[in-house]
Amino acid sequence: MTRRAYPPRAVVTEVGPRDGLQNEKEVVPTEAKAAFVEGLAEAGLPEIEVSSFVSPKWVPQLGDAEELFRRLRPHPRTVFSALVPNERGMERALACGVRKVAVFTAATESFSRRNTNASVEETLERFRPVLAAARAAGVAVRGYLSTAFGCPFEGPVDPAAAARVARELLDLGCDEVSVGDTIGVATPGRVREGLDALREAGVPADRTVLHFHDTRGTALANVLASLVEGYASFDSSAGGVGGCPYAPGAGGNLATEDLLFLLEGLGVETGVDLEKVRNASRGIEAALGRQLPGKVFRAGPAPWAPVR
Amino acid sequence: MTRRAYPPRAVVTEVGPRDGLQNEKEVVPTEAKAAFVEGLAEAGLPEIEVSSFVSPKWVPQLGDAEELFRRLRPHPRTVFSALVPNERGMERALACGVRKVAVFTAATESFSRRNTNASVEETLERFRPVLAAARAAGVAVRGYLSTAFGCPFEGPVDPAAAARVARELLDLGCDEVSVGDTIGVATPGRVREGLDALREAGVPADRTVLHFHDTRGTALANVLASLVEGYASFDSSAGGVGGCPYAPGAGGNLATEDLLFLLEGLGVETGVDLEKVRNASRGIEAALGRQLPGKVFRAGPAPWAPVR
Repeated sequence: MTRRAYPPRAVVTEVGPRDGLQNEKEVVPTEAKAAFVEGLAEAGLPEIEVSSFVSPKWVPQLGDAEELFRRLRPHPRTVFSALVPNERGMERALACGVRKVAVFTAATESFSRRNTNASVEETLERFRPVLAAARAAGVAVRGYLSTAFGCPFEGPVDPAAAARVARELLDLGCDEVSVGDTIGVATPGRVREGLDALREAGVPADRTVLHFHDTRGTALANVLASLVEGYASFDSSAGGVGGCPYAPGAGGNLATEDLLFLLEGLGVETGVDLEKVRNASRGIEAALGRQLPGKVFRAGPAPWAPVR
Repeated sequence: MTRRAYPPRAVVTEVGPRDGLQNEKEVVPTEAKAAFVEGLAEAGLPEIEVSSFVSPKWVPQLGDAEELFRRLRPHPRTVFSALVPNERGMERALACGVRKVAVFTAATESFSRRNTNASVEETLERFRPVLAAARAAGVAVRGYLSTAFGCPFEGPVDPAAAARVARELLDLGCDEVSVGDTIGVATPGRVREGLDALREAGVPADRTVLHFHDTRGTALANVLASLVEGYASFDSSAGGVGGCPYAPGAGGNLATEDLLFLLEGLGVETGVDLEKVRNASRGIEAALGRQLPGKVFRAGPAPWAPVR
């Protein structure tokens, strides 16, 4: 049997400060968030999604976006990004000097309507001025595609249909698409189908990010399946912030340390220091006042080194 | 790229009642254990490790082995097995009419001495009369090989050294070897190395069982890597009994429902009803008085069906 090689390097995008904290009940003080982000930057994460320029009415946990960006020290090797739901959010992001933003849509109409009160097509229209402003300002844009592998309302998702929306995001001007298993139902065969469909729709591997959730314990198996297909860009949340083993509705983010442990074991370079991520996670765990679910965060890497 | 096929079927051996409960602080009443085992048998698990005929002095949680076996109803399609540490344990097992037993050694001297107060060689010698009695009684024997992928005391384990001990278990007369990642440090590349070494040492895939721990979240990725290599027999613990996300020393057993969810998603038949396993897990969770960590136990399968 031919043994496949893994990509020599992978990009890990840290979404704990935004996606993670958005899914936590506790509203964390700006100071603790800033320490969290600084710690993650010091760990070498190439991109950190810091916050969202959404109305605090909707997401009080992220109501301090401007203040948080103001507090961050310069980290030349880290891109600090932010979610922007619309043109107004984009204006706020530009005013903060944000160099990368993310827009957010879904693979299914039901999830789009429930999440954003708009059809998929309406969300894409909403993004046009955002993409135009980004282009004018030289700001990079990521497009999030949630429920790409399954929808809590519509059930199984047609891979080709999801891929079409991903392609539309690229056509609108997004630099990359982060394809999400929002409810953590994907298994490796379904992941492969999804990746095949993406490429067939003209969404290449090098512009695709995988955003797996670990709600059912399959996230790392899905990462492995993606690596084998040549995909090398993944989202994760330090310490598993936003996930909760005992409340299945709560996010289920893949923990960054768990992802790093797998990648290191496979000999895939990330440039990220796992111990420093754990350190940053300790701080945010204290601020949240609850135990974080990340396994390698808690157990540490192998007592001696990752098993290669 | 050639797409590998997965095995069409896999055997899932349920070790919750023995390996799981052995790692729980709570001593569960025999009645609750019997209900647990009955529920698991009704779910269709082909083999259930019911208890251990070890001295209750050492493992009080399993001090009721005879009583438990006495309470079990006949289940023609389920093999009820038990751990036996030595000849005395074997006598007790035979007296209960047990049809399959398991003996237990380690890949490293340090773990063997700490766990059993004997060198690996001494444990193998101890098994000779057990294997002889098994052969005479027509009883099947499994050999457990712990710390096969890494040792908490010795660090990385040489795959060839571990494979040699596995081979010795087969030479002694064991029908199969269950190779364990006791401290949950293995990642897929290391798993592959281990499986290669086993086959090179004359331990074929169809006599090998994989016993992964999920201490670092890698269990299902390691299962996937094993399936791809043609391995189709795995141990797991219903509900994740014996594992604990917040106490890294505590077992880390792979939850049976999580394993089943992955296998079903991959189209690998097991003959096991996931919902019935969840039901059995609910009962033992109540008896243990703590929340079990199994993810699919808690979250359920996909809201509609496994995503294939």
